[in-house]
Amino acid sequence: MREVWVVGAASNRYGKLAETAREAATRVAAEAIRDAGLEPKQIGHTFVANCFGLTEHQAHVGPLINNGLGIPEVPSVTLESACSSSSAALHEAFVHVAGGFADAALVVGAERLGHLDTMSATGYFAYAADYPFETKNGATFPGLYATLADAYRHAYRTTPEMFGAIAVKNHANAARNPHAHFQKEISMQTYLDSPMIASPLRLYDCCPFSDGAAAMVVAAPDAFPRPANEPLVVRASVRTGAVTALQDRSDLLGLPSTQRAGKEAFRRAGLEPRRIDFLEVHDCFTIAEALALEDLGFFPRGSAARESLEGTTARDGRLPVNPSGGLKAKGHPVSATGAGQVVEVFEQVNGRAPGREVPRTGTALTHNVGATGGSCTVHIFSRR
Amino acid sequence: MREVWVVGAASNRYGKLAETAREAATRVAAEAIRDAGLEPKQIGHTFVANCFGLTEHQAHVGPLINNGLGIPEVPSVTLESACSSSSAALHEAFVHVAGGFADAALVVGAERLGHLDTMSATGYFAYAADYPFETKNGATFPGLYATLADAYRHAYRTTPEMFGAIAVKNHANAARNPHAHFQKEISMQTYLDSPMIASPLRLYDCCPFSDGAAAMVVAAPDAFPRPANEPLVVRASVRTGAVTALQDRSDLLGLPSTQRAGKEAFRRAGLEPRRIDFLEVHDCFTIAEALALEDLGFFPRGSAARESLEGTTARDGRLPVNPSGGLKAKGHPVSATGAGQVVEVFEQVNGRAPGREVPRTGTALTHNVGATGGSCTVHIFSRR
Repeated sequence: MREVWVVGAASNRYGKLAETAREAATRVAAEAIRDAGLEPKQIGHTFVANCFGLTEHQAHVGPLINNGLGIPEVPSVTLESACSSSSAALHEAFVHVAGGFADAALVVGAERLGHLDTMSATGYFAYAADYPFETKNGATFPGLYATLADAYRHAYRTTPEMFGAIAVKNHANAARNPHAHFQKEISMQTYLDSPMIASPLRLYDCCPFSDGAAAMVVAAPDAFPRPANEPLVVRASVRTGAVTALQDRSDLLGLPSTQRAGKEAFRRAGLEPRRIDFLEVHDCFTIAEALALEDLGFFPRGSAARESLEGTTARDGRLPVNPSGGLKAKGHPVSATGAGQVVEVFEQVNGRAPGREVPRTGTALTHNVGATGGSCTVHIFSRR
Repeated sequence: MREVWVVGAASNRYGKLAETAREAATRVAAEAIRDAGLEPKQIGHTFVANCFGLTEHQAHVGPLINNGLGIPEVPSVTLESACSSSSAALHEAFVHVAGGFADAALVVGAERLGHLDTMSATGYFAYAADYPFETKNGATFPGLYATLADAYRHAYRTTPEMFGAIAVKNHANAARNPHAHFQKEISMQTYLDSPMIASPLRLYDCCPFSDGAAAMVVAAPDAFPRPANEPLVVRASVRTGAVTALQDRSDLLGLPSTQRAGKEAFRRAGLEPRRIDFLEVHDCFTIAEALALEDLGFFPRGSAARESLEGTTARDGRLPVNPSGGLKAKGHPVSATGAGQVVEVFEQVNGRAPGREVPRTGTALTHNVGATGGSCTVHIFSRR
């Protein structure tokens, strides 16, 4: 198996896009290829994520992106794994390059949701749950994650401020990220005063619907030995599944797919959690960040929300978490989210995150969840 | 790179399903695993195709299928490449197994369209074209393939009977296939009398909308050396792309993605077209079968429709094409179609196609197109 590097990356600013997902994907993909110092014709395969293309009347978008890049002959495929779609795309690109099926591959995730009203978008999102047992009975993701948050607060006697600290931190980080949807800090009081969406989740516990696009180029160093940037060495690329419906799970105090993916990723990378310098985790709701940090083994069960309040996960803390601002404040353009996490790691490692630098960038982990953990993807990266 | 075999396969009867795509996929996947003589827990990765799940309110269906199989922890991903989605899924499974990332992988494609009216279904299909340049201006696939058929008949002075012969042949084959949507023969007169849909395409030039599910298990012989069936050795698994919009192409007398995929597949397999014993090709419209046979190098340009009229491609002809009945008459459940082509090859090789046997089953080729050729996948199989 060949070593695989991330050699170039690009993102637009998340928020409300005037352009279609196809247009945004094409533009950002071209930027990522240019950033990698490659020509489009050096791309062997394109892996796309774009879950909601049908709402823009466009499926089969890979050939259109490749055509826009001037490489119509290159194969492409669109991957869907709910909110983890573009990290699933990265996994396929990793497998193709590591296995010798391509020397360089393009990963691009793009989503446009801004043309839908909030109820429609919430409804579409909810199709990633178990329809006959969850969605059909009225469940949407705010409600499902509220169930997880409720279990957590009762088990560990947490305070609202512990979750508020996650939101305040991620907004503070996003305020320094030019790619972020919400570039504004919030106070704890703003968090506490925000309306209840699905008890115990307040408005500022929830990520927004964002439009956005993020892309990267992965390549084999034996084919491209002189990268234009400081590459990310992919130390582990792991995907797992789990029972989708919450009602069918024995434990609501964690996501089993994250637990399995994290354990396997650390095994493959030959690292312990304490060796990770910073993280991007899937914080679609603040409870999700707390669960991720515990499931991945960074904190004992029931302690992650408290650690956030104590500043451990701040950008200058012992373990910086979501220096990008996370889904919570950078935004959550579904199919771009996983790729966007890697863009943040790439920018941190390459000194392209001015004003939001983390202290150490030797190793990083990205964690991307589909639905309430029916799927999970974990990547571990290190410097050369 | 390891050798990869198809070791088990299953399909339901295409047509109108009472069950959801999720239910059909789970049931057929379980049959394919049982057919392979494996336990579900021996599956390392599940690759799903299901393009129109959103119309059933269900995305992220892989974890649900795996849960139904009793293997919720196994990773899954859904792949979309328009009408070539499940052959794209097979390609990913091939890459994972050949590259050593899994010893066995499940490929399952399923679609339900019967709950949509014909105009809605035609409209959804058309999203696989180039929306701003084709679909938005009123083009749907009958019209786009009619454009190709029109170019062909003017270039080569063909007769309607030449295309009718393709339809008559494929209906005759489907009449002997218990998986087929249309299990009835048609006469040339029935073809000629059928209403014009998009000139020169008559009703019987067009494939139906079908519900259906097809699945297979691929495995590495070094991990599973004693298969329960006669395996298909994957000699080549090739995907390509091309300019999607017809208006942007220089040549309408063929699909460039098929030409490239065929050439590369024969190169990798180390075979010439004349060494192929039988074929399943993408005949969404009769013109598509003619173009495929020419693009793949089986007949000179302009001669394939004539060869059909002369019986060359009949089940007992020199080169049997679509012994299953093809998309035309077996049916076209979009995301099951490519996997279903391989099911036919598997059943022919294993003596499980009584009444529609082809004379020789040493080598076979499957050809699956996305849209009007924006994507193409070609597989070549041989016996051990």
